[in-house]
Amino acid sequence: MGKGLFITFEGADGCGKTTQLNLLKDYLSSKGYDVILTREPGAKGLGEKFREILLNYDGEVSNRCESFLFLADRAQNIDTIVNPAIEQGKIVLCDRHTDSSVAYQGYGRGLDIEEIKSLNKLATGGKTPDITLVFDVDIETSMKRVGNVKDRMENSGIEFFNRVRNGYLELAKQEPNRIKVIDSTKSIQEVKNEVIEIVNNYLTNLTIRLK
Amino acid sequence: MGKGLFITFEGADGCGKTTQLNLLKDYLSSKGYDVILTREPGAKGLGEKFREILLNYDGEVSNRCESFLFLADRAQNIDTIVNPAIEQGKIVLCDRHTDSSVAYQGYGRGLDIEEIKSLNKLATGGKTPDITLVFDVDIETSMKRVGNVKDRMENSGIEFFNRVRNGYLELAKQEPNRIKVIDSTKSIQEVKNEVIEIVNNYLTNLTIRLK
Repeated sequence: MGKGLFITFEGADGCGKTTQLNLLKDYLSSKGYDVILTREPGAKGLGEKFREILLNYDGEVSNRCESFLFLADRAQNIDTIVNPAIEQGKIVLCDRHTDSSVAYQGYGRGLDIEEIKSLNKLATGGKTPDITLVFDVDIETSMKRVGNVKDRMENSGIEFFNRVRNGYLELAKQEPNRIKVIDSTKSIQEVKNEVIEIVNNYLTNLTIRLK
Repeated sequence: MGKGLFITFEGADGCGKTTQLNLLKDYLSSKGYDVILTREPGAKGLGEKFREILLNYDGEVSNRCESFLFLADRAQNIDTIVNPAIEQGKIVLCDRHTDSSVAYQGYGRGLDIEEIKSLNKLATGGKTPDITLVFDVDIETSMKRVGNVKDRMENSGIEFFNRVRNGYLELAKQEPNRIKVIDSTKSIQEVKNEVIEIVNNYLTNLTIRLK
């Protein structure tokens, strides 16, 4: 077990998670914590190549290929970025992680959820986030925020969006200790305060003192 | 089930399989068969990007990442190249496939063989080769043929080579109908004749008539 903290940011496209991730980084850094940011797909290094393929490759990418590519990216992120940082006592903030696969591929596309979970476990070596923040928004809010910027992952319909959203809520019910749902239709400042409260509670309760 | 034929070429580095793959292509083409060549890793298109990473990426690539990348490449090859060609009645000759993972990662590196097989099954959707040719050579012959050309995959020792070689032989014992072992220390012409005999027997026995 590492000495740092692993916090993942989840939610449907346009939920505001990336904004909040940066705000939390600023907050924790100002408190003296050593914080690093990463994301899936697309951690620094090899992950960037994977992200480029997953979001922008213009040829055919088979569904099975895509699934394994997400897992390759995840394994690389955990093994070369997250775990080493945790070992050094850092706080790692990760934009999307295993719950994205379950929500998008499982609940969204209808693929076998237990299989996805079991593949995730292989990719992470069993490492799980200490805290997962799910930023919950309705589709209207999401649409407004995403605007016209589209990529391969966002090019889907309303029903898909709702299946993904409900998937996240379902996961939060299954793992209430790890996964915290935040109403992300509120203002950025309100959401930020809620995030900080959750993280501070965690740090206080565990009496973890990171440097 | 497709109407074509799927033949995979396997063996340790320097076994001569790629030479024989090209010779079989020439032979079958001269007989009027429609033949396509592919390889793992590195099928045409996206596979080439995967191959570049697997063989030449100069940063750290975690073992788990590498395994999933091989599977992504395999899934893409099967879904976008092999299966469509088989459906069109073509003969597909593939340089390395699932047995490479089992021989290299399982027997060679000591990873869980049943797990590798089960992941392969996910990547291929259960598609298996009609014929697998294993080109068996001893390490001296291999070394002579590979010469000084090295890449990430070939950068291993003698014991590793022998574990891989024995892995292939073990697999052939388990699936004698699919996997045919050829003594590849013989001359190119002798090996070629043996390959042609195996393939012709298969075509005759099944009375498959491909165009």
